[in-house]
Amino acid sequence: MKFQPPRGTRDFLPEEMSRRRKIFGKIRKVFENYGYGEVCTPAFEDFELLAKKSGPDIEKEIYVFKDKSRRKLGLRFDPTVPICRIVSSNPSVQKPIKFYYITNMWRYDRPTKGRWREFWQAGIELIGSDKSEADAEIIAVVSDSLKAVGIKDFYFKINSRKIVDGILQFFKVKKSSWIGSLREIDKLKKIGFSAVTKKLESLGLDSLTQSTPLINMLENYKSIDELENYMSAVYEKRKQIFSGNEASQEFENLRNIIKSAKLLGVDNIRFDATVVRGIDYYTGFVFETFVKGYEDIGSIASGGRYDTLIGLYGGQDLPATGFGLGVDRLMEIIKFKEKYYPVKVFVVSASDDVRNNALRIVQKLRRKYNIKADTDLVNRSLSKQLQYVNSLKIPYVIIIGKEELGKDMVKLKNMNTGEEKSVKIEKIDEIVKSF
Amino acid sequence: MKFQPPRGTRDFLPEEMSRRRKIFGKIRKVFENYGYGEVCTPAFEDFELLAKKSGPDIEKEIYVFKDKSRRKLGLRFDPTVPICRIVSSNPSVQKPIKFYYITNMWRYDRPTKGRWREFWQAGIELIGSDKSEADAEIIAVVSDSLKAVGIKDFYFKINSRKIVDGILQFFKVKKSSWIGSLREIDKLKKIGFSAVTKKLESLGLDSLTQSTPLINMLENYKSIDELENYMSAVYEKRKQIFSGNEASQEFENLRNIIKSAKLLGVDNIRFDATVVRGIDYYTGFVFETFVKGYEDIGSIASGGRYDTLIGLYGGQDLPATGFGLGVDRLMEIIKFKEKYYPVKVFVVSASDDVRNNALRIVQKLRRKYNIKADTDLVNRSLSKQLQYVNSLKIPYVIIIGKEELGKDMVKLKNMNTGEEKSVKIEKIDEIVKSF
Repeated sequence: MKFQPPRGTRDFLPEEMSRRRKIFGKIRKVFENYGYGEVCTPAFEDFELLAKKSGPDIEKEIYVFKDKSRRKLGLRFDPTVPICRIVSSNPSVQKPIKFYYITNMWRYDRPTKGRWREFWQAGIELIGSDKSEADAEIIAVVSDSLKAVGIKDFYFKINSRKIVDGILQFFKVKKSSWIGSLREIDKLKKIGFSAVTKKLESLGLDSLTQSTPLINMLENYKSIDELENYMSAVYEKRKQIFSGNEASQEFENLRNIIKSAKLLGVDNIRFDATVVRGIDYYTGFVFETFVKGYEDIGSIASGGRYDTLIGLYGGQDLPATGFGLGVDRLMEIIKFKEKYYPVKVFVVSASDDVRNNALRIVQKLRRKYNIKADTDLVNRSLSKQLQYVNSLKIPYVIIIGKEELGKDMVKLKNMNTGEEKSVKIEKIDEIVKSF
Repeated sequence: MKFQPPRGTRDFLPEEMSRRRKIFGKIRKVFENYGYGEVCTPAFEDFELLAKKSGPDIEKEIYVFKDKSRRKLGLRFDPTVPICRIVSSNPSVQKPIKFYYITNMWRYDRPTKGRWREFWQAGIELIGSDKSEADAEIIAVVSDSLKAVGIKDFYFKINSRKIVDGILQFFKVKKSSWIGSLREIDKLKKIGFSAVTKKLESLGLDSLTQSTPLINMLENYKSIDELENYMSAVYEKRKQIFSGNEASQEFENLRNIIKSAKLLGVDNIRFDATVVRGIDYYTGFVFETFVKGYEDIGSIASGGRYDTLIGLYGGQDLPATGFGLGVDRLMEIIKFKEKYYPVKVFVVSASDDVRNNALRIVQKLRRKYNIKADTDLVNRSLSKQLQYVNSLKIPYVIIIGKEELGKDMVKLKNMNTGEEKSVKIEKIDEIVKSF
């Protein structure tokens, strides 16, 4: 019988891990250049913590288990909740707090294309600032991260939960249905207009006067100013005061975010009132990121403001904003041109009696020149060693032969060009430097 | 109510993570210089796979849970088993296979000092060679890894399961008790002579003729040659053929490992017949690593040869050797002198009307000079910004003031020396290069 990784999980082998490490390194550098410091939280948390915001229904969507003291635990499915736990239990830490993570998480989902039960996410949390500059920085960090990994053609869609709340208020949707409505509106791209309006109707919204015009309004106004002008005009016409609407202050905030983002060098931001994000804890600004030509895989980095989440864990309320970037989606998009090989040089022994010399030379390459190097460990013949080198695509070999060794020489071969030359052992130093 | 990380687990905050990343990077470089490629396996595996070698009793020591299809899963507690799964299900991969990992694992243990339920391990597996050079390389990789992270004074204790098997045979311990006996012998350092002999007696060994002289023999012979000479002399005296003993061929093998290790530049290897390792799957060579002055925390890196494990998962038997290094123990030993600060430069706005300039300058530092830099995101006053800089130990500040800005100047301050000077904005370039 053959064993496999459990359903929805994967093994990553060296070539893929090498790609991932390079990508992670580039993202990490961007995060750290903006002053974010890495945090790492346990793989599992008290279930009670995980359920605090999402409710006990989350149990259906995550891995839950009891430890031997009957403590109920759950595998981490969201990086923001454990970070809020840290912040709320360390109230004396200087604000703003800038944390980042690049880590795996788990959800008990039906695995589909690009959707794994064990998945990776990279992201940042900026805690302690309610300013539009903070939200703009979040977008700038996404922008620089994507550029750093070679993705150039992308754009942001921004919105605010408060604007959608204001529109729900405008259509007189009762407040207790707002969160539920947001969750349905989030599915617009996926399931379409008529499915969403139907879902809204099952929440109690009237088709003619609420769900249909509501979705139409979210979809039709493509600029912040247009939507604001329309809403304030209608309020004026009805002789109602627009500042009483949830959305009224938020238009200016979104304009400020766009302005600050421009100062930070980001100008590919669009307004889209249908962007609301599916997670309960967002309170205002939300955004999604699309790579041109890859819009069908959905947003690659998403986030927003969650000003009330930290208070939930026993601390004081702290304004906070952040994003998460789907690493697995990212890896699908990135075209990686570099060839992978495990080592740069393989030291070949032409016969058994030079194996000790091979060991000494390979060790010098590793230790003195910090070069990835290897040699035969299974007593293979010369030709079998070269076969191994070829199958692993190792670009250079140094061949140690008894006769040449007597003249303090070794043979150097470039496996890509086939070029071969004999060099003095003391000259290896200079040659390996040029690899 | 305050939430905590679950018992036996920890949060790692930026300062500690920065230390860990540096250490991981150094270890990774050594592993890769020897031609090892990183692998990453799922956090959980089928329980059946995990129990295959250790037996179902392992359930008491690890985190086990059922997913919603009633599949029994367990959190990874050992990196070698999943790697053997990969190798046995990919029989066409070129041998030798050189894999490394630096990852977290979980065991359901009583947490004690330095022993966590979520713990980190770094290690390598070298699969497909039964040569002593392979075992020597494993030791060399440990040696170079410890040196790379600044640990200089350490030594290896090596032994072979086959030698201890030979001694059990010598004392006529019945074969079915060998594995159990090894497990007890492994506890010698921890629980001492009399406790171990008692445990051996409960396995059926006779106190006078088996357990006591057996432990004495393991403890008394401090060199490979001495033990070999003693055993072969006794066999000769009894007119028995020494080559019939399990240990007889293994002395030479250990000498070869020591010889090859010397060629690889490692000469701090001692023989210790009491070293057996507690894990079932070892079949021959085993070793432990001790840091001088820290012997009380036990072996920091341990491993050995497991030639029959891969066959257990459905593939053919493949000779294999490797080690695991306890990252948490390592971090306790390493003295880390570097100061931690989240960014190198903080761009301070002396008044609100220069904030946009601060944003532009901080962004240039990050993007053009690849420097970790930050600026105020919470509209703090000049003095509050400097307080924040001090509390985070940020070494440099650039102060933007309206008046100086009019003359295209900014102020640069070294927060460690207090030194302050005004510089032309276009000169910032040169100055930040010297940071």
